[in-house]
Amino acid sequence: MSQMQLKEGERIDQLFSTDVKIIQNKAVFSYSIDSVLLSRFPKIPSKGLIVDLCSGNGAVGLFASTRTKAPITLVELQERLADMAERSIQLNHLEKQVTMVQDDLKNLLEHVPRSQVDLILCNPPYFKSTETSKKNLSEHYLLARHEITTNLEEICQVSRHALKSNGRLAMVHRPDRFLDILDTLRRYNLAPKRVQFVYPKMGKDANMLLIEAIKDGSTDGLKILPPLFVHKDNGDYTDEIFEIYFGKREQK
Amino acid sequence: MSQMQLKEGERIDQLFSTDVKIIQNKAVFSYSIDSVLLSRFPKIPSKGLIVDLCSGNGAVGLFASTRTKAPITLVELQERLADMAERSIQLNHLEKQVTMVQDDLKNLLEHVPRSQVDLILCNPPYFKSTETSKKNLSEHYLLARHEITTNLEEICQVSRHALKSNGRLAMVHRPDRFLDILDTLRRYNLAPKRVQFVYPKMGKDANMLLIEAIKDGSTDGLKILPPLFVHKDNGDYTDEIFEIYFGKREQK
Repeated sequence: MSQMQLKEGERIDQLFSTDVKIIQNKAVFSYSIDSVLLSRFPKIPSKGLIVDLCSGNGAVGLFASTRTKAPITLVELQERLADMAERSIQLNHLEKQVTMVQDDLKNLLEHVPRSQVDLILCNPPYFKSTETSKKNLSEHYLLARHEITTNLEEICQVSRHALKSNGRLAMVHRPDRFLDILDTLRRYNLAPKRVQFVYPKMGKDANMLLIEAIKDGSTDGLKILPPLFVHKDNGDYTDEIFEIYFGKREQK
Repeated sequence: MSQMQLKEGERIDQLFSTDVKIIQNKAVFSYSIDSVLLSRFPKIPSKGLIVDLCSGNGAVGLFASTRTKAPITLVELQERLADMAERSIQLNHLEKQVTMVQDDLKNLLEHVPRSQVDLILCNPPYFKSTETSKKNLSEHYLLARHEITTNLEEICQVSRHALKSNGRLAMVHRPDRFLDILDTLRRYNLAPKRVQFVYPKMGKDANMLLIEAIKDGSTDGLKILPPLFVHKDNGDYTDEIFEIYFGKREQK
C-alpha cells in the first residue's frame, strides 16, 4: 500500500464494515451511499460469475468481493475511473478475484461468456439525457449520472444476453424512474422480484430504490422489502446505516 | 339511532377519530384497516362527485364523508352488504350526501354521468379467482375478497369512463399484485402518481399498498410516500395508526 501511487486530488476511503479501501477523487468521481447499499442488497452467489456494470471507481464490485470467492468483472467506460478502480484492486490485493474492463457495456459479451453470468450489479446513470438541470458537472460526473453514453434499455438488453437463466440483475435507481424500470426489465424478460425503497428519513418520500430481477422468472410474487431510512431526525445515520458503514456498534 | 333496526349478529362500530358509526356483522362482512387507510389516503375534493366502488358495508365512503361536502355514491353488488350500508347512512344522518347503489359496478354509468367523477375510491377483491386457498369463506367474504364478480380490469375500465380528465382513482391492494395493478391502470390511461406501502411492522415486507392514479395524467413523476407501519414490536398500534383510529392522544 505504501507503493500505491495516488494521483493529484485522490484519497483513499475505507468502508469500515469491510476492509475494502477505495481510491476516490471528489473532483472526478467518488462513490456514495447508493453503491454501498447496492453491494449488499442482493444475495451474492458464493461461486459463478459476477459483473459490476457502470462500475465507476469500482466500489460496488469491491465491496461485494468481501462476501464471495466468485470472480467479479468490473465494466466502466471512462478511462479515468477505470484507472482508479484498477489501482484499488491492487491496493486490496484482489487481482486474482476482480478484473477491470474498460469498455462500453454494449461490448460486455466480448469479456464474459453469453448466458453464463450469475449476478449483475449496476449503479447506472439515473437521469435521462434530456434532464439538463445538473449539467454544470464535470464530464466524469455528467456521464456517470446522465444517460448519455448508456441507458436503461441498453443495460437491460446486455444483461439479458449475459445472464444465465435465473441469473439476477440488481440495480439501484430513483423512484421517479420506477415505472420505466419495471417496463424495461420486463421487455427483456427480467422479472422484478424484490424491491426496497430507501428514504432520506422518516416522513419523507423515497429518494432511492433497490430492485432485483430474475432472467426468465415468473412475473408473480413481487416482494416489497422493509424500508430503509438513512438518517434519524437529528441528522445522524440510523443504526442500520451506521452498521453498514462502520460495522456493529460495540456493546458497552 | 334508537330506532335503528339492527339485524341478527350485527353491531355498531365507531371510528373514534371521526363520529362515523358503521353497522357490521362479523359473519357477513366487517371493514378492516384497509378501508380506514384508503379513506384517508387521497386528497378528498371539497366539491364535485365522489364514488366508492366495491363499497361493502360503506365504511370507505362514510369515513370519507367527514372530510368533504361533496356527494358520495356507494356502489356494492351484494344486497346484504348494501343493506347494511343503507342503514349506516341513515344512522349517521347522511342521506343528503351519501347515496347507496346496489348494482354491478359494470353499470356505474347508469348511476353517475360519464367523465364527471372527481374521485373514485375502491377497496376491491384482492385475490385472483383462481387462488382457491381461502375459499372456505362465507359467500359474502368470498365475493368481497376474490375476483369472482369483478376484477382489476373491469374496475379500471369503468373508472376510466366515469372519471373526468385529471380525475383520480385511489385503491388499496396487495403488493404481490403491484405489477398487475400498474399495467392495468396504464392500459386505461390512468397514470400512477402516488404509492404508499403499508408494513405490518418494522422489518417485515409490505402487505398492503395504497395507490392513486390520474386519468390522462403524464406517466412521469411517480412518488413513493413515507411507509406506514401498523404495529409496534410489542403488538400495539403505532402512534400513527392509533391516531387514525382514535384521534390524537391527549397531551398530558
